[in-house]
Amino acid sequence: MVETTRRRAIEDAASDLFRRNGYAATSVRDIARALDIRGPSLYAHVASKEDVLWAIVDRVASRFEAAAESATLVAPDPGDILGALVRAHVAVVTDDVGEASVFIHEWRHLSDDRRQTILERRDAYEARFRRAIAAGIAEGAFAMADPSLAATFLLTALNGIPTWYRPGGPTSPAQLADLYADLAVRSLTEASR
Amino acid sequence: MVETTRRRAIEDAASDLFRRNGYAATSVRDIARALDIRGPSLYAHVASKEDVLWAIVDRVASRFEAAAESATLVAPDPGDILGALVRAHVAVVTDDVGEASVFIHEWRHLSDDRRQTILERRDAYEARFRRAIAAGIAEGAFAMADPSLAATFLLTALNGIPTWYRPGGPTSPAQLADLYADLAVRSLTEASR
Repeated sequence: MVETTRRRAIEDAASDLFRRNGYAATSVRDIARALDIRGPSLYAHVASKEDVLWAIVDRVASRFEAAAESATLVAPDPGDILGALVRAHVAVVTDDVGEASVFIHEWRHLSDDRRQTILERRDAYEARFRRAIAAGIAEGAFAMADPSLAATFLLTALNGIPTWYRPGGPTSPAQLADLYADLAVRSLTEASR
Repeated sequence: MVETTRRRAIEDAASDLFRRNGYAATSVRDIARALDIRGPSLYAHVASKEDVLWAIVDRVASRFEAAAESATLVAPDPGDILGALVRAHVAVVTDDVGEASVFIHEWRHLSDDRRQTILERRDAYEARFRRAIAAGIAEGAFAMADPSLAATFLLTALNGIPTWYRPGGPTSPAQLADLYADLAVRSLTEASR
């Protein structure tokens, strides 16, 4: 339990540094310094800097997967599913903007095997968006669009949130989720005029 | 002329390294090595690494500004203006994905004065999107939405292009511009049902 707490403190400090300075520019010594301990002491808790990155990325990926799994169960309507997927994504990002930012921007620094694993998990996640969009097009509810490019459009907007969103600012997570879900669903829906 | 060519070669090599490894993790020595010259020789052409970053960021900012200026002259219709702004942005990004990526991701590493200048130019640029959205809402052509958040949604999607777009891939710049303009204008337009 104490070990878990200590590991989590290390991951939180690392997450903050990875986000501010990037993974490549952060050393194990920097992480130790942020925790006010010596570098060698850090190695008693984590095997490498990459292990810390992996712990963060794996945890955030699991959060996205669980949230999307719930979202796709909401209703049979593709518009509702897409809206729920967007809300779920916004909720995960706004719940811990720092860790989400590390997941989004630093996962490429993982070692080959782990990077490949995350690449596959990201693709499976993005496929949920592609399927909702393709289903909406097939039903005639959505305008014709390339489902893959449309999903990329939406996911890049969603993944941009950590670059500008400030917790405690004028927009609450719930307001952001509503607005982004509306924009996303409308972006695929044929206009009336 | 020769000096201009040499400076541009330095900026191109630096842009490639800044994009791949980040500004913070790139040294003047790395840039010199990429050009197969010695570090001191590089300083005959550029005063500092930050000067090279500034040259790239300033050039890309000017391209975005010129493209947006043309776009806002196209027509009085807010939907047409928004669509033209999106097309113009996609054109600038796809024209040189590497430099656009450096502009989007590395400008924060500029020194205080230059960062402030770019911050102001970015805000003036984004204001064009906000104004088109606000005008569309005022005319009743667009659904009610916070113009600032809606502009951020669109601009983060647009600025995500360098993270996935590959020149020479299955989607041409013109196709991408069309699709993104359609998604953007629809995202603000009330649906028929």
